[in-house]
Amino acid sequence: MYSQCMSTSETTSDRLIESTRELLWERGYVGTSPKAILERSGAGQGSMYHHFKGKPDLALAAIRRTAEELRATAEGVLGGPGTPYERIEAYLLRERDVLRGCPVGRLTMDPDVIASDELRAPVDETLDAIRELIAKIVEEGKEQGGFAPSLDGEEIAATVLATVQGGYVLARASGSPAAFDAGVRGLLSLLAPR
Amino acid sequence: MYSQCMSTSETTSDRLIESTRELLWERGYVGTSPKAILERSGAGQGSMYHHFKGKPDLALAAIRRTAEELRATAEGVLGGPGTPYERIEAYLLRERDVLRGCPVGRLTMDPDVIASDELRAPVDETLDAIRELIAKIVEEGKEQGGFAPSLDGEEIAATVLATVQGGYVLARASGSPAAFDAGVRGLLSLLAPR
Repeated sequence: MYSQCMSTSETTSDRLIESTRELLWERGYVGTSPKAILERSGAGQGSMYHHFKGKPDLALAAIRRTAEELRATAEGVLGGPGTPYERIEAYLLRERDVLRGCPVGRLTMDPDVIASDELRAPVDETLDAIRELIAKIVEEGKEQGGFAPSLDGEEIAATVLATVQGGYVLARASGSPAAFDAGVRGLLSLLAPR
Repeated sequence: MYSQCMSTSETTSDRLIESTRELLWERGYVGTSPKAILERSGAGQGSMYHHFKGKPDLALAAIRRTAEELRATAEGVLGGPGTPYERIEAYLLRERDVLRGCPVGRLTMDPDVIASDELRAPVDETLDAIRELIAKIVEEGKEQGGFAPSLDGEEIAATVLATVQGGYVLARASGSPAAFDAGVRGLLSLLAPR
């Protein structure tokens, strides 16, 4: 009986988190009402407030899960085989749902997320971790001779991440992934070992 | 009497547009209610619906004005003196309120803006116009020898614009303009004539 109850609870909590993740991606924090979360998850108001203190608490769980997934994906691609250039290339070219935008990056445009240190933390930590990883790969590439010694790992890492995040902006503005792809190809042509 | 009335009308309409521009920049379209616009502008509900058909109509006027301003600023900087590299450098380094983000780019994260061809049009046209301008400057730089002939103007232009738009994302995530600056410096080090 108890384990049955636990299992149902876990499922409801999970469904609430998953629905919140989707809504945050589609409509942002400001555009996501507790009512919309309940409707999408099919959970009752009572069970939402049983599992979470409220929208910020539920959103924090959702943002953390999305951030962890993004980080794991990026680490997987960047930690793959190949030269430093090839690993950055793989990161830039990895399959993305470009027109949906980045589920983590888009949160930075949300005033209520940015105003809350707690909600902003997983966003900041994730982007920072990916940036650090890219910076190390650039430094490796400088040692191996693929990248010019004049390049700064931290700076290039910020450029790589910014090109991806800004690529989403250009793609969504134009309604086509082409602008994202163009930005990535441009960056790769600048980074290419000569 | 008539001109007096016209002048008051223009002022109210203008105040409504300016308040809407501020709110769209701060909170996005989804996060901006007609009530908030009325409160910030000090206009009455009647005068809002006298001048505009509703929130989409008022937002369109606001987005158009913001887009025109951004385009004029970019054209001013990119059309300034200097080599192609220096003009792109000036564009990348121009003074920006980095932590506020781009008033045009941020709209692409707004589902209601992206879902409306009418609201999206000024966003798309503005980013496209700036991209075209940068692409031409890159082509100029290739002819003059400052940029490598292997570079593609359209692609590099997308990279430049994406670095700026994504730089805002990184800066807002970390709560500091440093990440924006790093991304821009990284791109400039890649673009620098050798």
